[in-house]
Amino acid sequence: MTVLKNDRFLRALMRQPVDQTPVWMMRQAGRYLPEYRATRAQAGDFMGLCTNPERACEVTLQPLERYPLDAAILFSDILTIPDAMGLGLYFETGEGPKFKKTISTAADIEKLEVIKPLQDLPYVMDAVSTIRRELSGRVPLIGFSGSPWTLATYMVEGGSSKDFQKTKALIYNHPEAAAQLMDKLADSVIAYLNAQIDAGAQAVQIFDSWGGALSHDAYKSFSLAPMAKIVKGLKRENEGRKVPVILFTKGGGQWLEAMADAGADCLGLDWTTDIGQARARVGDKVALQGNMDPSILYASPDRIREEVARILASYGAGTGHVFNLGHGITPGVDPEHAGAFIRAVGELSAQYHK
Amino acid sequence: MTVLKNDRFLRALMRQPVDQTPVWMMRQAGRYLPEYRATRAQAGDFMGLCTNPERACEVTLQPLERYPLDAAILFSDILTIPDAMGLGLYFETGEGPKFKKTISTAADIEKLEVIKPLQDLPYVMDAVSTIRRELSGRVPLIGFSGSPWTLATYMVEGGSSKDFQKTKALIYNHPEAAAQLMDKLADSVIAYLNAQIDAGAQAVQIFDSWGGALSHDAYKSFSLAPMAKIVKGLKRENEGRKVPVILFTKGGGQWLEAMADAGADCLGLDWTTDIGQARARVGDKVALQGNMDPSILYASPDRIREEVARILASYGAGTGHVFNLGHGITPGVDPEHAGAFIRAVGELSAQYHK
Repeated sequence: MTVLKNDRFLRALMRQPVDQTPVWMMRQAGRYLPEYRATRAQAGDFMGLCTNPERACEVTLQPLERYPLDAAILFSDILTIPDAMGLGLYFETGEGPKFKKTISTAADIEKLEVIKPLQDLPYVMDAVSTIRRELSGRVPLIGFSGSPWTLATYMVEGGSSKDFQKTKALIYNHPEAAAQLMDKLADSVIAYLNAQIDAGAQAVQIFDSWGGALSHDAYKSFSLAPMAKIVKGLKRENEGRKVPVILFTKGGGQWLEAMADAGADCLGLDWTTDIGQARARVGDKVALQGNMDPSILYASPDRIREEVARILASYGAGTGHVFNLGHGITPGVDPEHAGAFIRAVGELSAQYHK
Repeated sequence: MTVLKNDRFLRALMRQPVDQTPVWMMRQAGRYLPEYRATRAQAGDFMGLCTNPERACEVTLQPLERYPLDAAILFSDILTIPDAMGLGLYFETGEGPKFKKTISTAADIEKLEVIKPLQDLPYVMDAVSTIRRELSGRVPLIGFSGSPWTLATYMVEGGSSKDFQKTKALIYNHPEAAAQLMDKLADSVIAYLNAQIDAGAQAVQIFDSWGGALSHDAYKSFSLAPMAKIVKGLKRENEGRKVPVILFTKGGGQWLEAMADAGADCLGLDWTTDIGQARARVGDKVALQGNMDPSILYASPDRIREEVARILASYGAGTGHVFNLGHGITPGVDPEHAGAFIRAVGELSAQYHK
């Protein structure tokens, strides 16, 4: 195994001292980068990029060539699991992801099978090991999965949704069937993330993109509980190192205390939460990741720097902070502005780690 | 003046004792009702309904014929103010509201004029006085306006938006111009709501539909501060009665303490907030309105009743609660289910007011 040259990200997740606050960006390998658009054009389409390990590796590394980032994240889609379950993922231009088959009855849920990642999604594990080899110890590699609730919304609605009516009707009218669905998804996510860890992922993040659409009670039962089950089922050590887990519920700012008890090492925050207040609420239970509004990248580099300074000051001195955006970087951002953001974190954060 | 026969709603807003928890539904005059769809078909389109006081009155009263609701709300659009400012509101079938002109520079903002409601929006005040006359004291009438931040997003983006990039770029890059825009909008909302109060509105609600998309700091500066200015500028007494003000920021559950200091009588909550915890946080500063997930209306009447019971128990004994959904009722809801909801609040809440 190659030596990890920059372990700032892993150390901060475990609340160990660091020299400066580590930083990465959700969706850092993405459409805002011209080199990404070029590779994607060669691949034909988005899934062509995900299913080809060399191309997935290429786009994963692109932002690292431009910016002093402290982590790489596997390039893949959050909907690989339902696709592997046989729902038939496809993309239509200008629209979000869609599924050919949807889940609408208890019988549909009964029939679903927990995935076998090595058989069902070999291209993901190939991408992980390829990226890990090509990184050759520069920074750690993050693996990821969608959360059970988030995956379920796409499976039940058949695609993106504004208010998740069908999925909510399922949990309210058929709570047992819904629990079975979440359970099969949790088991699939456990198998999937453990396979990514075996292939070389050095930390994993669970993306709960739509947990914030639930009521407090429904969130605990149908999103947080399955995520807590996942955390318990994960391989937490590999290659002699701890494999930290990040749990990110967008819109979950009101529920941080409950989330902090789920067993993860770190909670991701969106920008609606004040990170200093969040730190006071979770104490030393977990590290925090976030949380600049990605829209600030449309402002001037000076303004971006000010906002970085504000967030660093709000978190305050000491370790346990991984700087990130509060959500994925958007396609219209000027790559120079992303660079101003990343550099500002490096330059302004050292003072908090003396 | 006719005597108000049912003042439960106004009393709860002022935290005075009531016999049962009052209830109304955001968007209660809406597409889920067949009688609404029939009137709208006669009117031709949505704005035809808003600009005709008799028709606006007719649809406002429709849900009161069906359900034992404790308040009526003026039927109108939240975007009347930017329309009156000359931006040219229009609707395209299957899409949200749009504007012919948008605001993109400081010069555009400089040119905007604070509206004169009686001249610019006479049809709204005609609708208010017509509805008030036809209600003849059955229940109080609520007037409303969009919040400055919410109105600004439509004016700058030209319509609905997912992430408000242009409006956020405005506040981050040109905070002074953005503050001037919010100030002109706040002054317009003050004039507009005071005109509605003069015409007969007995309570008013400020709908801050998109405040929850902001960071904590940006919310305070660009959404909450202009709303606090509005509250200060409103006529708070009319016809010998207090005119209560409700402030509703969807997605604002993390900021209730700050919102409670804005001077409003009541805060609206969406369903992501636990209403019992919210009550503990705001103490006796304000009443609370909400907060059932509108999607629960897709569940069975029994399940709806359970959820009503849960929310009533979470709020607990005593006044200061106006039951509502956490957002507008959606077009696909069965009117029988809405009825089950309204009846359950009446039947289950009396025990909390002994």
